[in-house]
Amino acid sequence: MATSGNRSILPAALVLWTALGPAPITTAAEAQRAATIDETAAELRDRALASPLAWELLESLTTEVGHRFAGSAGDRAAVAWAVAKMEELGLENVRAEPVTVPQWVRGEARGRTLSPYPQEMKLIALGGSVGTPETGIEAEILEVAGLEELVEVPDAEVAGKIVFFNRRMERRQDGRGYGQTVPIRGRGPSAAAAKGAVAVLIRSVGTGTHRFPHTGALRYAEDTPRIPAAALAVPDADVLEAQLRRGQPVRFHLYLGSRYLANTQSANVIGEVVGRDKPGEIVLLGGHLDSWDVGTGALDDGAGCAISLAAAKLIAALDRPPRRTIRVVLFANEEFGLSGAEAYAQAHQAELTTHQLAMESDFGAGNVWRFAASVEPAARTAAQSIATLLEPLEIAFDAGPAWGGADLRYLHTSRVPVADLTQDGTYYFDYHHTEDDTLDKVAPDALAQNVAAYATVAFYAAETETSFFPAPARTQRER
Amino acid sequence: MATSGNRSILPAALVLWTALGPAPITTAAEAQRAATIDETAAELRDRALASPLAWELLESLTTEVGHRFAGSAGDRAAVAWAVAKMEELGLENVRAEPVTVPQWVRGEARGRTLSPYPQEMKLIALGGSVGTPETGIEAEILEVAGLEELVEVPDAEVAGKIVFFNRRMERRQDGRGYGQTVPIRGRGPSAAAAKGAVAVLIRSVGTGTHRFPHTGALRYAEDTPRIPAAALAVPDADVLEAQLRRGQPVRFHLYLGSRYLANTQSANVIGEVVGRDKPGEIVLLGGHLDSWDVGTGALDDGAGCAISLAAAKLIAALDRPPRRTIRVVLFANEEFGLSGAEAYAQAHQAELTTHQLAMESDFGAGNVWRFAASVEPAARTAAQSIATLLEPLEIAFDAGPAWGGADLRYLHTSRVPVADLTQDGTYYFDYHHTEDDTLDKVAPDALAQNVAAYATVAFYAAETETSFFPAPARTQRER
Repeated sequence: MATSGNRSILPAALVLWTALGPAPITTAAEAQRAATIDETAAELRDRALASPLAWELLESLTTEVGHRFAGSAGDRAAVAWAVAKMEELGLENVRAEPVTVPQWVRGEARGRTLSPYPQEMKLIALGGSVGTPETGIEAEILEVAGLEELVEVPDAEVAGKIVFFNRRMERRQDGRGYGQTVPIRGRGPSAAAAKGAVAVLIRSVGTGTHRFPHTGALRYAEDTPRIPAAALAVPDADVLEAQLRRGQPVRFHLYLGSRYLANTQSANVIGEVVGRDKPGEIVLLGGHLDSWDVGTGALDDGAGCAISLAAAKLIAALDRPPRRTIRVVLFANEEFGLSGAEAYAQAHQAELTTHQLAMESDFGAGNVWRFAASVEPAARTAAQSIATLLEPLEIAFDAGPAWGGADLRYLHTSRVPVADLTQDGTYYFDYHHTEDDTLDKVAPDALAQNVAAYATVAFYAAETETSFFPAPARTQRER
Repeated sequence: MATSGNRSILPAALVLWTALGPAPITTAAEAQRAATIDETAAELRDRALASPLAWELLESLTTEVGHRFAGSAGDRAAVAWAVAKMEELGLENVRAEPVTVPQWVRGEARGRTLSPYPQEMKLIALGGSVGTPETGIEAEILEVAGLEELVEVPDAEVAGKIVFFNRRMERRQDGRGYGQTVPIRGRGPSAAAAKGAVAVLIRSVGTGTHRFPHTGALRYAEDTPRIPAAALAVPDADVLEAQLRRGQPVRFHLYLGSRYLANTQSANVIGEVVGRDKPGEIVLLGGHLDSWDVGTGALDDGAGCAISLAAAKLIAALDRPPRRTIRVVLFANEEFGLSGAEAYAQAHQAELTTHQLAMESDFGAGNVWRFAASVEPAARTAAQSIATLLEPLEIAFDAGPAWGGADLRYLHTSRVPVADLTQDGTYYFDYHHTEDDTLDKVAPDALAQNVAAYATVAFYAAETETSFFPAPARTQRER
């Protein structure tokens, strides 16, 4: 979610798009056709808003599968669940396309301050961390605020220490606090190792104050030793901080049982509503089927899977299928390396130019409040029509660019247009990547509002005669 | 917190007390004296409201000690902490009076559904539970709503099963939902064992929806086998319930590493502000120093200890001590058998008739909203005067009886009068007895309001010429 350097190029095109406004409808036939699309879309939207289907799907996934980390038994169960559900929902061309995934095993995580004030701490290994020796690692804590501050500390002061990155994440509707803080999780371990640290602790990258540490992937640099790294729950980071404020050296003991096993197989699970007129043109909507190995992955990303499946089912239940094909893709292993996204882009390379629009729901289950689409000016009328259909859902049309979701990043290079239905993420990072990501954190009404939004956009994009492909050049934000 | 059967006797006396109203003040000297007490009390109250002392004490306890389960290393550290703090605060006659405590060790707890839908579950051993065999216990789940419903199930259906008590606790300001649900925790294990169950699971007795199971003591009956018993976190109980609703038998695997070690030593830690006029008459205020072995015991009952210590310190800082002695008692082992309460009553049996009033803060750190006192009608003027002093703190005077707190139960038989400063417990059971009971759950302003209330009542009771002892007969509710 970090922003790219090419942002300054974007506004010009988008200001133009906004300034021109909707193009006038020129013939009676076009007007008639537009009314029909709009009417059907509005009916679909309202039916979706009243449908409990996404909730039922999410309840099923979290009850019958639970968490489903790439390569785990839960992952295999989830693939079987998704295939069975798609068939049960009447989607077509249901298949599981193979994806090779890494297999990292978390193992046990234990930490405690040893002196001057012994306390047990709740912590969790960062995804991909190496384990400690069997006897753990014991060292003094060195606290730094972030990556920049670490640079200022002489290597001699870091050597042999456990570096504690102690930066708080800000709560924001759009989740920008995550992008501001998460580089510590990704790059902190190698940055500390480069200066001689023996392990890394970070304050959890999350907004929750409950005692759930927050996991997520680290990225080791090639040229530095791989040292164990874990996140402390926020209240535990508070205690460690308070102990450090007393001025005496704080010694810490860390044990992580994490390790890698051999790569293994997972799958992208795909199902379709085949288009009546242009079946080879694709409107893609999806989420990722994998989760971290904590919680039941209700918000991340069971919700996105349920929203996509429910939206497709509601479209399939229309009197006739839309002109283009609706394709639901439940991606494998988003969390630990985007394996499914990469496999999809490779397997479907030849047909990417037929992807008219792609959308991914992967930000929990809060209400959608923003719609944006990265499409050329020629498609602006259609985008505006979609926006008008979304107004009753209290969704604003944002002329800014769309990002599309992590699993769509490899489609960007083929200029597949993407749309965003941005969710309210105010509370998302209270639960995200923690043991507390469970079904009770999902509001059924908000889930249905999401389905209504996705169904509306997907149907309209599949039914309209407007072509969206290709996306404007360079309007993608990098992840 | 269960109510006794003698409740119907109480209202008559209390209605009388209320109806009579404050007795008139009869002489100028008495009026002058009353004004002085009231003025001093009001100043004390307002100083307490602005004081960060209780917060500082609680931060110190949770940072430097953490949890402090009876008999643990943390318990010993807490006793040392309390003695040092009382001396630092300038309390007098500081001592640690020995208390023998049981020593139960929780060990590891693991649970998972095996079929038809394998999932790991967050659970915690109930306090005092026996462990399972090293290989755990595997059995089918039998769900019942509560103790009454279990009675209706034929023994043959219970035999060999893991009984799952699945009752939800209601959220209430006064915490009454706890009293309605907690008998399952206390008596459920033996009730199930009597019918042949091999283990017990309960839905956590708590209002939180976070994934923290709730511990607390069970009570094995003498005449039934002792079977392992654990509480599932609320979201995990939801999943188990949802799995059971699908109609197939659910098999479960439970491992508990719990065991008893030999009894060991702890202490009640006591400090005083010695009275200037009647040093042998005692106004007792306290909390319990022990906690469960989860969280840092910030709410239960670090807050009560901090409130008591801060109130005593603020009274000690007055120009002169009050007429009677203020005694702070930080009780040992409230949670796992009231050992400290019993030891105090025994050690101080001879002087219990000199205890003018006793109060315990043990319901978290919410704002005080109710004041009640179990005193004879002769003391009603004093009680009313105290109530008037508490009005600016938004505390209502309740003519109903006072309970006094669990650690005061042995004082009841000696008719020691008790007062209640009832806290808002709306959110208390979101954290109580869980890993999430940490300092960040305490609001500094509410903590200071508590100190103001305790300081006011304790000072007034210690300064007034009114005698409170003995309490009216039979006005104590049983726990």
